[in-house]
Amino acid sequence: MVVKMSSPSSRPSLASDAPIGIFDSGIGGLTVAHAMAQAMPAERMLYFGDTAHMPYGDRSPELVRTYSVRIAEFLAAEGCKAIVIACNSASATAKEAVEASVGPGIPVIDVVAPVVKYLSAKGAERVGVMGTRATVGSGIYGRSLREAHAGAGRTGCRVEEWPTPLLAPLIEEGWQSHAIMLPVIEGYLQSAGWVKGQDRLIDALVLGCTHYPLAADAFREVLGDAVEIVDGPSIVASAVAAALLDEGLTAPPSQAEGKGLAAHRFMVSDLTETFVRSAQRFFGKEVPLVPGGPWFQH
Amino acid sequence: MVVKMSSPSSRPSLASDAPIGIFDSGIGGLTVAHAMAQAMPAERMLYFGDTAHMPYGDRSPELVRTYSVRIAEFLAAEGCKAIVIACNSASATAKEAVEASVGPGIPVIDVVAPVVKYLSAKGAERVGVMGTRATVGSGIYGRSLREAHAGAGRTGCRVEEWPTPLLAPLIEEGWQSHAIMLPVIEGYLQSAGWVKGQDRLIDALVLGCTHYPLAADAFREVLGDAVEIVDGPSIVASAVAAALLDEGLTAPPSQAEGKGLAAHRFMVSDLTETFVRSAQRFFGKEVPLVPGGPWFQH
Repeated sequence: MVVKMSSPSSRPSLASDAPIGIFDSGIGGLTVAHAMAQAMPAERMLYFGDTAHMPYGDRSPELVRTYSVRIAEFLAAEGCKAIVIACNSASATAKEAVEASVGPGIPVIDVVAPVVKYLSAKGAERVGVMGTRATVGSGIYGRSLREAHAGAGRTGCRVEEWPTPLLAPLIEEGWQSHAIMLPVIEGYLQSAGWVKGQDRLIDALVLGCTHYPLAADAFREVLGDAVEIVDGPSIVASAVAAALLDEGLTAPPSQAEGKGLAAHRFMVSDLTETFVRSAQRFFGKEVPLVPGGPWFQH
Repeated sequence: MVVKMSSPSSRPSLASDAPIGIFDSGIGGLTVAHAMAQAMPAERMLYFGDTAHMPYGDRSPELVRTYSVRIAEFLAAEGCKAIVIACNSASATAKEAVEASVGPGIPVIDVVAPVVKYLSAKGAERVGVMGTRATVGSGIYGRSLREAHAGAGRTGCRVEEWPTPLLAPLIEEGWQSHAIMLPVIEGYLQSAGWVKGQDRLIDALVLGCTHYPLAADAFREVLGDAVEIVDGPSIVASAVAAALLDEGLTAPPSQAEGKGLAAHRFMVSDLTETFVRSAQRFFGKEVPLVPGGPWFQH
């Protein structure tokens, strides 16, 4: 297996017309990429889905860090001006390692911090989080939210985090609107003490996995309209736009003109028909996936 | 990442008291290891579960072959006298590559061929197969069964193969007896033309994934007693015993005396608490998992 390593010296200098690097353990991060494409029509993206190693949600924190750092170094070596960690499991366990590996000058945006900031600003005090074992096991949402609330002088904040590892496979199978989604979501909530039809347990539910937004309707049907289903991808897209602005890296508006899907690159470490089909569902339209990335064999 | 490579010259010579190497994409292959331990109490096993790269069922055939060959070379370098591919996806796509990589003298037993031989000997003509996308996509069960039937001069054989990718995650989550298993199995059968309560579609169902035997009761409840649920692991264990006998590699009976679980080694490429818990369910008792294998970082 030939491994291309990157070093800071081999990187092209950053420019505002460079692409944004974005990665996920698989194709779920395309929900974030889609929100970014909507919010920032002038930006180009280099998306990498680590389909050879997905799902990160079942892996140990050490292994998720190893994979994430290798990918971030690859994206930096490809000249990306910013790195978006569009995977909750990697955001929860690998953000600092990724920042250290790409060094200063390349902003790193994860999918957890922007959502925590959003909830804290809203003063949401009873929050539920559903996610993979890796994300929930890290306790990152609860810890960050409690810190943010304490910093704002608020007490009484309660965050519950529930591992819901079956939801991503169900959504990958295309069953996000299948009748089975409801008893699965209810089953997970019930083991958390939730009783159907009684007072609501939470004010807001964080969909702590990039797959879950596709099943927003099912979550809404189970929880009712009184519980806010937090729209992670659009919140993260806003945070990316803000980070680019802060660093003077926003793409020139002219770059939006006549721009199609071909302005982006979508790479995966293992390419199968299933991933091609899934990509279409997660991005909302057909995506030209190509095999590539740090583990690609030449 | 430090990679230990093996070469034929570094291998200890094979002896009947050497361990049997057995590998799977994860912990599901422990159902096969358990059947082997029951059937051959004198044998020692070196089990390797590639938990860093599971599930193979969603990967491309090329990647499954790459991983399988690397593992087989590792097991051969560790002195194993035989290799058992206890993973349907790897059996379907990587058997020839594994045989070529370890060379003659080390028998390679997969989990597909013994089951095909069993069904053919029984004359089962209407067979259903449930498995991962990789296994079903390869068409190996249908092709092999039709060949075996044709070789025996039987016509009218019908094999249907259905990809059922949700079943393994459900069983990994420990939901094999959960009420949700039934509608999921029924849903898959219905899209294959099966109508509940009507004439049965098949005479036998092959559980074409090492996870599925844990849910045998659910399959039986859906299909009724008239359909044989094929007991893959015990059939494979018999095939391993036969192969060892053929090659004069059966362990000396004295090796069974006072032998406990410590006579075996159970290795995984990524170790998490979830895998430890799952291993106990798949093997029927606690298993001392240790991190190791060809990708292990020293």
